[in-house]
Amino acid sequence: MPQRPIVLLTDFGLEDPFVGIMKGVILARAPKAALVDLSHGIAPQDVAGAARTLRTSAAYFPVGAVFVAVVDPGVGSARRILWARSRRHQFLAPDNGVLSWLDGDDALLETRSVESEKYFLRPASATFHGRDKFAPLAAALSCGLAAAGLGPRIADAVRLDWPEPTASSAALRGVVLGFDRFGNALTNLPSARVPRGARLTHRGRDLGPLRAHYAEVPRGRPLAVAGSAGLVELSAREDDFRARFRAKPGDPVHVRNPRRA
Amino acid sequence: MPQRPIVLLTDFGLEDPFVGIMKGVILARAPKAALVDLSHGIAPQDVAGAARTLRTSAAYFPVGAVFVAVVDPGVGSARRILWARSRRHQFLAPDNGVLSWLDGDDALLETRSVESEKYFLRPASATFHGRDKFAPLAAALSCGLAAAGLGPRIADAVRLDWPEPTASSAALRGVVLGFDRFGNALTNLPSARVPRGARLTHRGRDLGPLRAHYAEVPRGRPLAVAGSAGLVELSAREDDFRARFRAKPGDPVHVRNPRRA
Amino acid sequence: MPQRPIVLLTDFGLEDPFVGIMKGVILARAPKAALVDLSHGIAPQDVAGAARTLRTSAAYFPVGAVFVAVVDPGVGSARRILWARSRRHQFLAPDNGVLSWLDGDDALLETRSVESEKYFLRPASATFHGRDKFAPLAAALSCGLAAAGLGPRIADAVRLDWPEPTASSAALRGVVLGFDRFGNALTNLPSARVPRGARLTHRGRDLGPLRAHYAEVPRGRPLAVAGSAGLVELSAREDDFRARFRAKPGDPVHVRNPRRA
Repeated sequence: MPQRPIVLLTDFGLEDPFVGIMKGVILARAPKAALVDLSHGIAPQDVAGAARTLRTSAAYFPVGAVFVAVVDPGVGSARRILWARSRRHQFLAPDNGVLSWLDGDDALLETRSVESEKYFLRPASATFHGRDKFAPLAAALSCGLAAAGLGPRIADAVRLDWPEPTASSAALRGVVLGFDRFGNALTNLPSARVPRGARLTHRGRDLGPLRAHYAEVPRGRPLAVAGSAGLVELSAREDDFRARFRAKPGDPVHVRNPRRA
Repeated sequence: MPQRPIVLLTDFGLEDPFVGIMKGVILARAPKAALVDLSHGIAPQDVAGAARTLRTSAAYFPVGAVFVAVVDPGVGSARRILWARSRRHQFLAPDNGVLSWLDGDDALLETRSVESEKYFLRPASATFHGRDKFAPLAAALSCGLAAAGLGPRIADAVRLDWPEPTASSAALRGVVLGFDRFGNALTNLPSARVPRGARLTHRGRDLGPLRAHYAEVPRGRPLAVAGSAGLVELSAREDDFRARFRAKPGDPVHVRNPRRA
Repeated sequence: MPQRPIVLLTDFGLEDPFVGIMKGVILARAPKAALVDLSHGIAPQDVAGAARTLRTSAAYFPVGAVFVAVVDPGVGSARRILWARSRRHQFLAPDNGVLSWLDGDDALLETRSVESEKYFLRPASATFHGRDKFAPLAAALSCGLAAAGLGPRIADAVRLDWPEPTASSAALRGVVLGFDRFGNALTNLPSARVPRGARLTHRGRDLGPLRAHYAEVPRGRPLAVAGSAGLVELSAREDDFRARFRAKPGDPVHVRNPRRA
């Protein structure tokens, strides 16, 4: 029987064997499932970072894929384990907000609290639910398990607030959310909300208008670019914006509306 | 024909192409084998670290899996290459002790010195046996090769001593073995040997009783927890124990027996 | 239908979800393709490093494999996307020289500029062609797409010069090209060009004759070794040559010809 692909997102890193062990548990139960690492580089316990990654990534995965998001500072406590589904995918995650920002075709249609222990390893540890609960459950879903028996539908899952930019007549005010490996700064400013002719600033420094790609400025120069997640990114061409300008999460990034004379 | 899964454990890291090249060699010979990275983040030449990882991981992998453990400071010298099997798995590794601590269902039943060069790449380099010897041999085993022809059974494989804790009437004395990416310290103290009511210390600092999970203490507070490998771990809730307390491998960790009045 | 394996080489790192998203796009179109990470640890924008990796790795991958090399500082600009093939493999890469050094069985027989947008995601971003152009194109090639329709054959692809060592009667003069995770220095000196009895130096320091493997010298001692890519490497046994001798890319490495008396 075909098995659904399983997509793993954790803050486990790849130095330790945690991710490899989860894959062992999965393959012992769903030997033909394709396993994809979405990322294991979420900063430790950065639930919002994982939620952002899911939001910008889920749409690119095949219909039927089962996402397993284990960023779980409350592991072993009374926090619930959630199963959820959108039109295209299923999700497993701790109930801490990591599923908050799925939208579009991945807006959640149904969320359940997993109460059945039928698929868990026995005994289950209290510190590694990725191995003992999430992995075997993902394997069962990959093999076609219907989720209705896992536990009741709920409507009170933990939700994080998306950090909306604030708008005034003069400017749209956003912030730096984080950085990628190249030192590009991701902001919370939707590229579509940057008016033609508007200039952007980072901590007051002018970055010029929104660019379509890096090569529009000379090497080493900073720029604001329409990023691949639909959000403005700050960058320095063939250089590291974060290091060069000592940028930090929370730095103000403003879009100054062009004057209408 | 079905091909057995191959599980890779090395100190190669993922920055360089070494692991990718090994996978190329394997897939050219066993195109349908599932390849799982157990870890490539073993510290360079840390044979004991790799042995510990195998010990705590092997049980979670499917029956039939072929483990390839390449942490191999003696590559190219006269050190032997070993093939071994337990009830559930096969193993390939240099003869340096990396297979020393397999136990339970993975206790080794048979060990052979690989003397046949039939499956090696030609010419084989003297510095990258992962590519030239281990990978093609793993592919052959994945495809069903019987190991009897590889070389003679041996009984003198290199063995490392497990660092046993020492016991007295007052305390069980262990040490920090290493750290995971979260900064949790792994110790050599079996959780099952910590008596009810006993308190633990790290370099003399009281950590309280053994906890079942992190959320039993307030955020940022240190604790000793029954870790997922059956061993006591030292942690700080949603914080990095290693950085916070400048912990190091070899640090003393004691379990003080409760007084019997 | 069988799908060809896809081999990914990027400078994306594994902290961010970029590589995972590319795999999502591929699996949505070629669900049975084996995906292999050759490396994602190329230094940001290090086109020459990626070219070197392809040169030393391609031969080890199965016939039919499709390589996707995305080290692409010019993403979104007018730089072309190339498809190329050797006797054994296909390649996709930006036109920046990353395919310059393929040789032997992977010498390129045909190179095309990809002008068809038929397989790209719509809309395609200008900053993440790995996701929007390379991944879906690789999936199509994996599924058997004939490349003739992608665009015209070209003969003017960007080429990087290989850093040839210089020879005199007294010495062969090379340089350090880079380092691996163990701190071994890769040079541009072919091991086959080191005469019997010749001694090697690093920045003037004598390293003795070329060795076959690390264990020929005592622990901690530096050596020059015939590396697994056919090039001389500088190493320190069970130690980190780079850190120990503060080695840097471009450091001179000389082979002093033995005197013929």
